[in-house]
Amino acid sequence: MALRQDQDVVVGAAGSAGVFRTQYLDLPAPLPLDSGRSLSQVRIAYETYGRLAPAKDNVVLVCHALSGDAHAAGWSDDPEAPSAVDGFGADDRGIKPRGGLGWWDGMIGPGKAFDTDRYFVVCTNLIGSCRGSTGPSSINPDTGKLFGLDFPVVTVGDMVRAEKRALEVLGIDSVLAVGGGSLGGMRALEWTVAYPESVRSCVSIASTARLGSQGVAWNAIARSAIMADPDWQAGFYYDTGRAPTAGIGVARMVGHVTYLSAESMREKFDRRLQDRERYSFTLTEPDFAVESYLRHQADTFATRFDANSYLYISRALTYFDLARDHGRGSLARALADVSARYLLVSFSSDWLYPPRDSHELETALRANGKSVEHHEIEASYGHDSFLLEERRQAPIIAAFLQEVAGVRGSKR
Amino acid sequence: MALRQDQDVVVGAAGSAGVFRTQYLDLPAPLPLDSGRSLSQVRIAYETYGRLAPAKDNVVLVCHALSGDAHAAGWSDDPEAPSAVDGFGADDRGIKPRGGLGWWDGMIGPGKAFDTDRYFVVCTNLIGSCRGSTGPSSINPDTGKLFGLDFPVVTVGDMVRAEKRALEVLGIDSVLAVGGGSLGGMRALEWTVAYPESVRSCVSIASTARLGSQGVAWNAIARSAIMADPDWQAGFYYDTGRAPTAGIGVARMVGHVTYLSAESMREKFDRRLQDRERYSFTLTEPDFAVESYLRHQADTFATRFDANSYLYISRALTYFDLARDHGRGSLARALADVSARYLLVSFSSDWLYPPRDSHELETALRANGKSVEHHEIEASYGHDSFLLEERRQAPIIAAFLQEVAGVRGSKR
Repeated sequence: MALRQDQDVVVGAAGSAGVFRTQYLDLPAPLPLDSGRSLSQVRIAYETYGRLAPAKDNVVLVCHALSGDAHAAGWSDDPEAPSAVDGFGADDRGIKPRGGLGWWDGMIGPGKAFDTDRYFVVCTNLIGSCRGSTGPSSINPDTGKLFGLDFPVVTVGDMVRAEKRALEVLGIDSVLAVGGGSLGGMRALEWTVAYPESVRSCVSIASTARLGSQGVAWNAIARSAIMADPDWQAGFYYDTGRAPTAGIGVARMVGHVTYLSAESMREKFDRRLQDRERYSFTLTEPDFAVESYLRHQADTFATRFDANSYLYISRALTYFDLARDHGRGSLARALADVSARYLLVSFSSDWLYPPRDSHELETALRANGKSVEHHEIEASYGHDSFLLEERRQAPIIAAFLQEVAGVRGSKR
Repeated sequence: MALRQDQDVVVGAAGSAGVFRTQYLDLPAPLPLDSGRSLSQVRIAYETYGRLAPAKDNVVLVCHALSGDAHAAGWSDDPEAPSAVDGFGADDRGIKPRGGLGWWDGMIGPGKAFDTDRYFVVCTNLIGSCRGSTGPSSINPDTGKLFGLDFPVVTVGDMVRAEKRALEVLGIDSVLAVGGGSLGGMRALEWTVAYPESVRSCVSIASTARLGSQGVAWNAIARSAIMADPDWQAGFYYDTGRAPTAGIGVARMVGHVTYLSAESMREKFDRRLQDRERYSFTLTEPDFAVESYLRHQADTFATRFDANSYLYISRALTYFDLARDHGRGSLARALADVSARYLLVSFSSDWLYPPRDSHELETALRANGKSVEHHEIEASYGHDSFLLEERRQAPIIAAFLQEVAGVRGSKR
């Protein structure tokens, strides 16, 4: 597949999955939701990488996190597409805000952890998002107008139900593996509980069976920042010419700092001033490099992500609770009937989805006699390590998938 | 001194310093500022507890943190005065938002760490605040209107300069000790460097010689939340009938979570729901107890603290940098000429002003052959431990002050 020549940066070109255009499918029936409501029409954006084996036994479903999308690997065929690779990931690799490199390109492609020479990798955009699948910025078929806050609250369980039905539309009944980081790791876990007969393995990275108090608090603050913006207009802003860009900017800054670690911020910024020798002695100038960086993150994010989608997905994150949803409060009980093999990966400096959460999962799985391996990786990037520490997690994931697939050293 | 009988809660009554009314003094001359500007008229709010010894050698200056005030101990004589004791401190002790218990009442009083039977304790409200000392909500003598954003940016050095002059108005040239937590600890440190001949000892608790990248980031986010609120009106909102209450609410929520630890939040809230059995499946209801708690904190704070003051004090916090300001980048050099004895106290779970910052201070002081002791206390309350862990820090501070004062076991 031809690689684009107009990129200044060729990161990912070696072993690139190629150039892709996001595709769309419609679910054939209304989607029932955990709230008791339903979505009568659901469109799912997706991309696929690699080839489906005739036996259909090489499917790997990759699940993105809060602000990701279906474009997980390779380049977008639209050079103006915003890149979902941002923050340290973009900074440290010189990736431009546009140009469309997939958000997990370092992990998906020929010879990479999710090896597209072996596996048929599918990535779907989750419902509630603004990146192609049905969400609050979609048209409400009941009114002909954009949903806004009439969109029903969706859960991780609802997202996974939509993903299962989307795969069925593609003719896929079961997967070799489902994997992802953060909210993507939550969906991978939910898959194994909701559809135990359809999942052979689960790769849950920097994730948890339920967000703790502090994580719930950060999400509540981010949502408060959006809803405090008068331009949010109780969620019905789409046709007003105004949008809560200031609010989502603050939300993004909060989120961004929780994704990093104090150590990685110190290494990157310390107390360095931005383009000045001395303090400005103003309230409004971003004197410090870290202040300037956060403003840039806020501004960039506001242009590529819808505030209502942020609210809905954040809500789903905080609602997710395997023990509550499937085990009457017991995580071990929730995992009693799973049949998948589990790979859990956590990162030492991740204080948002800390290693202790993966340890809890490991303990509950072992209590049920399930197959689980947990790797706690020493890494300084905090929660974002799942996007950045490819070198250390890739071999672990590659080996796990090969063992699950029964492929030991030889390519198909 | 008579104790009030109309309090439902008598916390602090045993050993209470008494009932107090905040007093005010005016500096006799304009105050030069680090920015090059000056304040032509400066009023300082203050309270004192205990009695000044004839030799004036028992003065302890206590410095409050960002949102504190001069009312450090005992009860206010105004039963409607808002209490500066809030958050976990108020919750866990049943303290009402009004009733005027001093913000460090557990530490200041007869027989307490700052023993008012021995010491003459002075607490001044810092400049830039909205709690009685000159700040952005004061009248600008040049225009006759409230300052708003015409108030000059002030630094920790400026605050300390104002404090020194305020003590001189009270006839006090030197102090036995200067102490405080967080921003109060910064001022204590600044005192020892700016006025080495006037300070016999320094008690710096849960503080730092300079905020790291992450702390700078949290402060930048809090300020962004305020400035993003249209009701902020570029800082000139006082006579408009509108104020950025939503913005300062978000700022307070961010601050509040950084003051706690993940552990203490888990212990207090876990994922408990608030007044409900199941999720509301809405975006706007505070389903979780921690969400409800943060909203309450935001609402309470907005009624008692001015948003512009928050901006100015937050800016001062981030600018503070002993090494940059006094040591041409070297902390050891900045501390070369101090003569005070130092007590540093840090808390294991404080990730905003982490123990490593106090270790750095200790190392720099030792490199200069200065007298320093550093106690890292195992405590789960995070940064707020300096307000909550009285039992463990009080004996350390009491012993240190007695040794500095040369009072060994016997009362004056």
